[in-house]
Amino acid sequence: MRKKLLSVVLLLSGVNTYAQQTDEGTIKSIFDQALSKGKSYEMLHDLCVNIGPRLSGSPGAAAAVEWSRHKMEDLGFDSVWLQPVMVPHWVRGEQEIGRILNSKKIGTKDMAITSLGGSIGTGAEGIAAGIVEVKSFDELKALGTKAIQGKIVFFNRPMDPAKINTFAAYSGAVEQRGNGAIEAAKLGAVAVIVRSMGSGLEEYPHTGGMRYATNIKLIPGVAISTQHAELLSKLLKEEKELQFYLETHCQILEDAPSFNVVGEIRGGEYKDEIIVVGGHLDSWDLAQGAHDDGAGCIQSIEVLRLFKSIGYKPKRTIRAVMFMNEENGLRGGTKYAELAKQNKEKHLAAIESDRGGFAPRGFTMSASDKIKSIIRSWKPLLEPYDLWDFNQEGGGADIGPLTTQGVALIGYLPDSQRYFSVHHTSEDTIDKVDKRELELGSASMAALVYLIDKYGFK
Amino acid sequence: MRKKLLSVVLLLSGVNTYAQQTDEGTIKSIFDQALSKGKSYEMLHDLCVNIGPRLSGSPGAAAAVEWSRHKMEDLGFDSVWLQPVMVPHWVRGEQEIGRILNSKKIGTKDMAITSLGGSIGTGAEGIAAGIVEVKSFDELKALGTKAIQGKIVFFNRPMDPAKINTFAAYSGAVEQRGNGAIEAAKLGAVAVIVRSMGSGLEEYPHTGGMRYATNIKLIPGVAISTQHAELLSKLLKEEKELQFYLETHCQILEDAPSFNVVGEIRGGEYKDEIIVVGGHLDSWDLAQGAHDDGAGCIQSIEVLRLFKSIGYKPKRTIRAVMFMNEENGLRGGTKYAELAKQNKEKHLAAIESDRGGFAPRGFTMSASDKIKSIIRSWKPLLEPYDLWDFNQEGGGADIGPLTTQGVALIGYLPDSQRYFSVHHTSEDTIDKVDKRELELGSASMAALVYLIDKYGFK
Repeated sequence: MRKKLLSVVLLLSGVNTYAQQTDEGTIKSIFDQALSKGKSYEMLHDLCVNIGPRLSGSPGAAAAVEWSRHKMEDLGFDSVWLQPVMVPHWVRGEQEIGRILNSKKIGTKDMAITSLGGSIGTGAEGIAAGIVEVKSFDELKALGTKAIQGKIVFFNRPMDPAKINTFAAYSGAVEQRGNGAIEAAKLGAVAVIVRSMGSGLEEYPHTGGMRYATNIKLIPGVAISTQHAELLSKLLKEEKELQFYLETHCQILEDAPSFNVVGEIRGGEYKDEIIVVGGHLDSWDLAQGAHDDGAGCIQSIEVLRLFKSIGYKPKRTIRAVMFMNEENGLRGGTKYAELAKQNKEKHLAAIESDRGGFAPRGFTMSASDKIKSIIRSWKPLLEPYDLWDFNQEGGGADIGPLTTQGVALIGYLPDSQRYFSVHHTSEDTIDKVDKRELELGSASMAALVYLIDKYGFK
Repeated sequence: MRKKLLSVVLLLSGVNTYAQQTDEGTIKSIFDQALSKGKSYEMLHDLCVNIGPRLSGSPGAAAAVEWSRHKMEDLGFDSVWLQPVMVPHWVRGEQEIGRILNSKKIGTKDMAITSLGGSIGTGAEGIAAGIVEVKSFDELKALGTKAIQGKIVFFNRPMDPAKINTFAAYSGAVEQRGNGAIEAAKLGAVAVIVRSMGSGLEEYPHTGGMRYATNIKLIPGVAISTQHAELLSKLLKEEKELQFYLETHCQILEDAPSFNVVGEIRGGEYKDEIIVVGGHLDSWDLAQGAHDDGAGCIQSIEVLRLFKSIGYKPKRTIRAVMFMNEENGLRGGTKYAELAKQNKEKHLAAIESDRGGFAPRGFTMSASDKIKSIIRSWKPLLEPYDLWDFNQEGGGADIGPLTTQGVALIGYLPDSQRYFSVHHTSEDTIDKVDKRELELGSASMAALVYLIDKYGFK
């Protein structure tokens, strides 16, 4: 009788002891499987080495689409399909040159630069001009047309190293890359050089997307390595008349056909309720896109594979989505949300991994207070796996367009310290990924998906 | 009047608002300084590249002692001195050979092996014998003398990959390395091969200390890479008669003179109360000892340097200790505690960093419940810096001997995922250290020392 009473009390308290033990057990199985027999690293190695760079519209991106489709088919998911989407098609072209021409101190010197994604090229004739360094748009505007006309503007505000969360430091600096060419062109500049969005002092530059605006002249934009940004700034202090030569051959081509790749395991009980796990399949062209965002794609596939391998049959439909074109357009994410609406799909939650394949910290959330508090109530189950931070706002770029459909958006939050050493650079390669860290990310996502699948948000 | 009342209330509540704001500000200054102008990476780079390996008794260790002394003198600490201590002197000698002699499948094949620290060598004549694989001492004992006599015992129990804390996995396997030669020799074995204490499947072996016991025959011990452990095990399943050749030239020499290196900033208010921050200066001979434990030494020096650079004048005496001989004897840690007792020094707390220069997680503690709860009460001040785990028991090997003097022992707890990929291997080099992660560790230790210094444990 006592026992029965206890059960009733436990039942009334929401989650009974038996269920809780099962949750602990299932989550342990997920992590055991990932750490002992996980396939994340093996899959990511394959994608990085055998496919490599996969910028939207490139042959690499097309190969990655096929790779993902075959991978998920081979793993025996219930359905695998492609969602056609037109994507921007930007190509870098031949070798890029950034050169100091007339330094009294160092003479002529080539600098480590790379075109920003979406930039026009200078063409073979190049651009030679003087340089004006600024740290902000306000400083630029204060200088005005007279100072800027005919010049190359050098945006040199660093990411704030004192910010513990490197994404906050990135947010505080990235407008220079995104909008610098627009702001500089308004005042008559002929090109922009942007200090790379990197955490430290590195030899290599970081590329990344830049924008143009209607009715504002298109001027070329390049990033310069943080080491060379320091050098250039130092030289400019003494040699205001420094001349810089830029030569880039990038081109904006016609939009190209591409695809999101989707695989799912259908739910047994509420198959019309969908939980998405995703990453973006496109990457910048400078390297393998191992952390950004091969890791997120692979982890999403691995969530479904882990469920199959431990024999967990979800109540709801779990869908792994490899979004196309996060880096320079977000067309894939936009298309996915559009189709979801059109097909009247009900998405319960979408979880994106796009912060690198590093060790777990927690999850960011962009959801109702009720859903946030439900997810936070699972913390005791997740903290043993170093998932402790459930306080930050946010979801992910690709899942963002689902927000208008009332979907709970969640971001996998790994440790951020090393991400901006490799992000958008030639260094974003498989050897920078630690197997255990990567597999833990997959298991972390699977554990959360398991809890959402089991309990929903009621 | 109201204000005054409020102050009294806040004062009575232990920590008043003003003090708390100051704490937040000071801790922020510490982290800002470390992340913007920290010297940890620069110092560690110097130690790794210009001194390199520094096993007890080696010329490298002697050079590291001088390096540390000069470094702390150059930084202007109040006192810097050496504590003489005799240390074991083991040398690896010439090239080591581990060779499969007669596999039907692969013929003759050299394997990646390395002598365990403290082992005798086989000498130039080598040892050729059959192999018996076991996973535990129980399994070994069950086999008995008949099966083991004249054989090489191959201990092949892996570190459990499913353990989230890799130190727990290490603890679960390391007895094979530490005591394997003793247990095998009891049954007449001629040598032992131990599966490397590594988290994954690696090409290179992990060395580490092993022991002998009085009245038990001394037999050579080597570690084999985890990849080759797998291969060897696979071969043995089909080829029980496999012969293995071992040739090692290590020697145990006479104990050698060495030193702990100590630097301190004297306290203004309670100069006789000492807070130690430390790491161990010796490292294995296979690499630079970047994570193990160059990182800990440098972080300890950096704690004092950070205080000086932000202008914080401690109430208590803060002492950075570079302990000698953690890896194969603990003579430095033992000597330090001995001298502390002899000189009637009062140590309030000792904090060791010896888990690598990785991103912060928290601190382990081996202290009274009262002290633990005081330290945990500071969590709100430390959690913004990703220091959230204050639940694990433990201090550090070198500070361990202080325990009988009632000193609160604390371990800096960084993320553990990557440590056992490099630990005790040729891969423990400066390029495996991330600057931000390392500097965050220094700041984490400085923040805790600041709080202990300011509030004590009253």
